[in-house]
Amino acid sequence: MGANSFARLLIRCADQPGIVAAATTFLFQHGANITELDQHSTDPSGGRFFMRLEFQTPKLDLGRRALEQAFDQAVASRFAMDWHISYAADRPRMAVLVSAHDHAALELLWRWRRGELAVDIPCVLSNHDKLREAVEGFGLRFHHVPQDSPVQREQAEQRMLDILGDQADFLVLARYMRILSPAFVARYPSRIINIHHSFLPAFVGADPYRQAYERGVKIIGATAHYVTADLDQGPIIEQDTARVSHSDEIDDLRRLGRDLERQVLARAVRWHVEDRIIVDGNKTIVFD
Amino acid sequence: MGANSFARLLIRCADQPGIVAAATTFLFQHGANITELDQHSTDPSGGRFFMRLEFQTPKLDLGRRALEQAFDQAVASRFAMDWHISYAADRPRMAVLVSAHDHAALELLWRWRRGELAVDIPCVLSNHDKLREAVEGFGLRFHHVPQDSPVQREQAEQRMLDILGDQADFLVLARYMRILSPAFVARYPSRIINIHHSFLPAFVGADPYRQAYERGVKIIGATAHYVTADLDQGPIIEQDTARVSHSDEIDDLRRLGRDLERQVLARAVRWHVEDRIIVDGNKTIVFD
Amino acid sequence: MGANSFARLLIRCADQPGIVAAATTFLFQHGANITELDQHSTDPSGGRFFMRLEFQTPKLDLGRRALEQAFDQAVASRFAMDWHISYAADRPRMAVLVSAHDHAALELLWRWRRGELAVDIPCVLSNHDKLREAVEGFGLRFHHVPQDSPVQREQAEQRMLDILGDQADFLVLARYMRILSPAFVARYPSRIINIHHSFLPAFVGADPYRQAYERGVKIIGATAHYVTADLDQGPIIEQDTARVSHSDEIDDLRRLGRDLERQVLARAVRWHVEDRIIVDGNKTIVFD
Amino acid sequence: MGANSFARLLIRCADQPGIVAAATTFLFQHGANITELDQHSTDPSGGRFFMRLEFQTPKLDLGRRALEQAFDQAVASRFAMDWHISYAADRPRMAVLVSAHDHAALELLWRWRRGELAVDIPCVLSNHDKLREAVEGFGLRFHHVPQDSPVQREQAEQRMLDILGDQADFLVLARYMRILSPAFVARYPSRIINIHHSFLPAFVGADPYRQAYERGVKIIGATAHYVTADLDQGPIIEQDTARVSHSDEIDDLRRLGRDLERQVLARAVRWHVEDRIIVDGNKTIVFD
Repeated sequence: MGANSFARLLIRCADQPGIVAAATTFLFQHGANITELDQHSTDPSGGRFFMRLEFQTPKLDLGRRALEQAFDQAVASRFAMDWHISYAADRPRMAVLVSAHDHAALELLWRWRRGELAVDIPCVLSNHDKLREAVEGFGLRFHHVPQDSPVQREQAEQRMLDILGDQADFLVLARYMRILSPAFVARYPSRIINIHHSFLPAFVGADPYRQAYERGVKIIGATAHYVTADLDQGPIIEQDTARVSHSDEIDDLRRLGRDLERQVLARAVRWHVEDRIIVDGNKTIVFD
Repeated sequence: MGANSFARLLIRCADQPGIVAAATTFLFQHGANITELDQHSTDPSGGRFFMRLEFQTPKLDLGRRALEQAFDQAVASRFAMDWHISYAADRPRMAVLVSAHDHAALELLWRWRRGELAVDIPCVLSNHDKLREAVEGFGLRFHHVPQDSPVQREQAEQRMLDILGDQADFLVLARYMRILSPAFVARYPSRIINIHHSFLPAFVGADPYRQAYERGVKIIGATAHYVTADLDQGPIIEQDTARVSHSDEIDDLRRLGRDLERQVLARAVRWHVEDRIIVDGNKTIVFD
Repeated sequence: MGANSFARLLIRCADQPGIVAAATTFLFQHGANITELDQHSTDPSGGRFFMRLEFQTPKLDLGRRALEQAFDQAVASRFAMDWHISYAADRPRMAVLVSAHDHAALELLWRWRRGELAVDIPCVLSNHDKLREAVEGFGLRFHHVPQDSPVQREQAEQRMLDILGDQADFLVLARYMRILSPAFVARYPSRIINIHHSFLPAFVGADPYRQAYERGVKIIGATAHYVTADLDQGPIIEQDTARVSHSDEIDDLRRLGRDLERQVLARAVRWHVEDRIIVDGNKTIVFD
Repeated sequence: MGANSFARLLIRCADQPGIVAAATTFLFQHGANITELDQHSTDPSGGRFFMRLEFQTPKLDLGRRALEQAFDQAVASRFAMDWHISYAADRPRMAVLVSAHDHAALELLWRWRRGELAVDIPCVLSNHDKLREAVEGFGLRFHHVPQDSPVQREQAEQRMLDILGDQADFLVLARYMRILSPAFVARYPSRIINIHHSFLPAFVGADPYRQAYERGVKIIGATAHYVTADLDQGPIIEQDTARVSHSDEIDDLRRLGRDLERQVLARAVRWHVEDRIIVDGNKTIVFD
């Protein structure tokens, strides 16, 4: 049995009795062996219900399309579910956007090369040409799309959309220092992950390490979140923090912060790839 | 609807298809609304399966005994389950054993008085008389059972068993510095929680902070575990660590360690009380 | 030699060559054995310099007053130092202000009773009468100073100042939910420690756990800081964080946060008591 | 003034009054501006004393050799100090030994290429040929020195010593899975850093993640230490830990552990390079 012979069912609906029973009974009857089951309810009385099931596929009695039709009729329509199934054999396609700081992007490429990230990478886009050699060293395509002033944004974003075409299932902003337009963001709803170098909601905007230094915090942080039209306000996926002291200068904060950013972004991307995240309004459910 | 109108079903059996469907369908059909569901399988092919369900009880169509008989016939016998249901309305009864260090025991009493620990406390037992006033200040019964030499152990343990009678569902060793005999431990299988002041398996036995100091570790820890006949070898429930440096003397390690011990023990006891722990051989499954 | 036979010298001045040599040579020549030395410079060229020395006092060749005069003439005046010496034998006097949540205040009282906090406690002040019994159980004086509306503030603060008189060297706001007036704060400059239940600067103001819950953060925090005239803007002394998830309700955040608040406040107070903190503008130097 | 215009003085001697005064006065008189000063005493009465001073060198009135002679005569001989001065301009030379797991070695190379590690790297040695391409991609020399059975050890070690010659100031075992002979270790006393994939002293020896899994710990760790003749018993430099749960399989522990190993090793190497570590018997003083 192959390592990729499994799938994940994600469900979102109004909470009501019988959902778990219906979904698990359906899978059982069609030969799927459930190996992980996580569920969350915002409130058993009238709240929203979320579930993630991971199940083995070799003994399924139906093909993909037939299984999905059967599920829709037998279960999903009854509970008015928003749902989808993803198959581990289908590797999601991740495009990376980066500016001049390479640590976050290289962390992803390096994990990808080691086989730790089950994605395909159609390309890396950057408003600088600086990382071309490093990226091409991984055997990946690199596109330099300059954007030196806000007035170039529309044109630069159009060029990026042209390059991306339909090759990317989701985007990662690995220290991409340009603000994407709402129109661009709308093309990838809940499918753009950004790493922000502070523990949001503290220190939104530019140069958060300087802001942290000037406020005299004793802890710095990093936050991975989905990008929405509001800068640094999207649903938070993951955060982590590290201790600092009065003896740490801004450059020390940046150095310590880089390690945080790499770890936090890597975790967030892995969870996204494994379909462990459900967006609920401006929050995330993470079944890790 | 009362805050205690819920129950928990814990299940352990050989992994096999259909368990989740059967259990959730049963509860659904009898009017139980499932609010938490956690499951774990050591291996979908031939492994051991564990599940914890938390469900609301006000709309159940059967009383406790009838529900349990029905579950046994309809579900448990079919899968050869080891199972039990606990009801939040039944507060477990916790006896505390302590020696001269008061921090771990007082942390539990203080949380109990604030309503953070849903237990009844029949008594506190100690081989010292030192904490009598502090314990009685909480309105609790305190028993001094001296045990100054190993030869007194049999007699002291018999006296403790006499005092405890059938008043305690589980025991907590909150820095109790006497080794319990296998015969005593056998009276409370997987129902004695100890706090050990190191990150086990490092530094078993006496004076772990001195051992840690002499080894020059940069991290100290604390471990809560169930007590078995083998000293410091029982199933680990929870652990935590804290950084130390060359400038910390043994007394600093003890001071920092006390804070760890209090936190780790409090978490372990809460999980035990909420039936979140399943012992699997020499490990624990913790559905926190 | 008594446990309290040591003193601490704190120095602040413009950075310039020779400060460490001058101060340590002075102490050496007068029989003081230096056991700890920490220093910090914001910039060796034109920055501000800070130093803390801990030294043993039994072999000093001068009494307190003579030593201080000699230091002033021989060293401090030469470098235009702002400095003071505190003696471990002089226990600082800490008054505690608290509202209805008892966990932070009781943590301090409990550590004080165990001998972990080397302070005297002249009294506990509260705008509620709820904690009277708990506080008096420690043998401490409790004063209920109601302040049910903003218009009562002036009168309530005057009453607190009357009660405090000159009995308190510093105040701790252990979840005191009234905003002190700038005039009151000015009476205790850099001598009022507050515990705020968020990782500042995130979630200033009221009900930070609700704010954190609504933002969907994956980490909560607590911050101890000196109180200034600007709410939640004073110099940060200590912070810590804990992980939370989508399954944590607001009350879970409050429960987890209480443990953070207790730890963070206890550390900040200990550092203050041991003269380990120097305020530098809106930041702190903490020589822990 | 260049970024490398500073030096570090490390001192070890019996504790006695006047050491700090003598050393800082000497540096002051010769035009060195002290920017960092850390000291540690195991016991002010008869203990061992350690100090690290970082000072700027542009205004020194003497050259290196003359300064060192003057210090020896004026200060070091008086206190019977074991001491040395290192100059930031002299980059230490680090050789890396690695087997088949690449993560720890690549983390160091990657930080080196970004300028985060101020070392020169004469070569990478491996008992596998697997990492040749990755290492040579950094423009570094790679040597494959097979050692497939214990009987080959003497010959393999001799070949490594021949390759190293006097090119390396210290060695890093970045998951090098062969045990070095005492004779080899003796060539680099306190100058071989190993990363062990557990929180020592727990789980010495082979496959610590399997040991951790089988013991059922709730925390895993990594330890960087200096290598001595006793396996996994050398002075600990740095440790860190991460939480795991019952749902983590051995491969999850390995994955989480890799991130710990990378971070812990990188910190230990940086401290070694910046001369922040003093070995004291089987412990380390780390002035970080």
